[in-house]
Amino acid sequence: MSNTPWLPRPPPLLMVLSGPSGVGKDVVLQRLRQEEPSLSPVVTATTRPQRPGEVDGMHYYFLDPNRFEEMAACGEFLESASVYGYCYGVPKAAVRAALDEGRDVVLKTDVQGAASVRRMAAGALLLFLAPPSLGELARRLKARNTENSEQYQRRLETARQEMMCLPDFDYVVVNHEVAQAVADIRAILTAERCRVQPRRARV
Amino acid sequence: MSNTPWLPRPPPLLMVLSGPSGVGKDVVLQRLRQEEPSLSPVVTATTRPQRPGEVDGMHYYFLDPNRFEEMAACGEFLESASVYGYCYGVPKAAVRAALDEGRDVVLKTDVQGAASVRRMAAGALLLFLAPPSLGELARRLKARNTENSEQYQRRLETARQEMMCLPDFDYVVVNHEVAQAVADIRAILTAERCRVQPRRARV
Repeated sequence: MSNTPWLPRPPPLLMVLSGPSGVGKDVVLQRLRQEEPSLSPVVTATTRPQRPGEVDGMHYYFLDPNRFEEMAACGEFLESASVYGYCYGVPKAAVRAALDEGRDVVLKTDVQGAASVRRMAAGALLLFLAPPSLGELARRLKARNTENSEQYQRRLETARQEMMCLPDFDYVVVNHEVAQAVADIRAILTAERCRVQPRRARV
Repeated sequence: MSNTPWLPRPPPLLMVLSGPSGVGKDVVLQRLRQEEPSLSPVVTATTRPQRPGEVDGMHYYFLDPNRFEEMAACGEFLESASVYGYCYGVPKAAVRAALDEGRDVVLKTDVQGAASVRRMAAGALLLFLAPPSLGELARRLKARNTENSEQYQRRLETARQEMMCLPDFDYVVVNHEVAQAVADIRAILTAERCRVQPRRARV
């Protein structure tokens, strides 16, 4: 009697964690990586100035605008977007390499970036991290205190618009509390690995 | 600033737990209900004889063949199937009542039954519980020891055929170990509740 397992190993996942500015993507992603060490981080390139405590090549690749433009022109980004006057981009080669090795990949992008990944990478899994309410998002943006008042108002208005993009995503997780949000995301990863017709991420 | 939550409560789920005879559906379902008390059981009707320890109206509704036939003719079953010479059926009214009250419903059916539920109930979530291997399934069927040798051979052959129906299901969970299988199913339920476009079960 055969002891061969019934099922092949599921293909690697390409998960995009997105959501409005201030919702808590960074904190959620940090905790998620601690609990799911199999998730390969792919470092994003940006022209935004380095903030205190940020490490080049770890938090972001900090590029000057000319170099960024050069890579974008060569189609080397899976997605790139300009947000608040700065450019962000996910290097395609790094994502492809991880998937080819069978590793799951998680990307953090803004809402525009997620739409771009969907166009460029069939089978990507798009996850929207949502605040419990707009009032709560406003409080979180204020608490972060990295923007001046005008930037704050602009981000809040952008957040309102970003919420309208929810229908383009596969899943929505409400970030009431980081541990719960991470547990929900891990459940989604487990469920995706149990799909009979799995998504196959192709970059 | 609005504190209204962004998202409506997800609609109730109609989950069908299926899989080959002997894979462990009963044990998994029992544990699942303990851990997810929100899942409404819907008791199946059957013409199969009551086994020792089974309670009418709890494990099954034990019906005589005439009464079963009458209900089937009136379209009162969401699914009904004849397996090993006995009839099984899920009363539609009970499923509809639970869903109308916003309760999640879980059904246990054989593989034929799951296909029937999919036809009769749009938006049902079909879950296939699979053995780690055919050898392991044979051992479990033997250990159960409720069938004679001929019945055992028949069930094993049926199980082989039932495995071919896997592509008709949404998810597959391998029952290596009950606690792990239940955790995977709970993750699937969580993920389904996070879907941006939820399934809407209609009976």
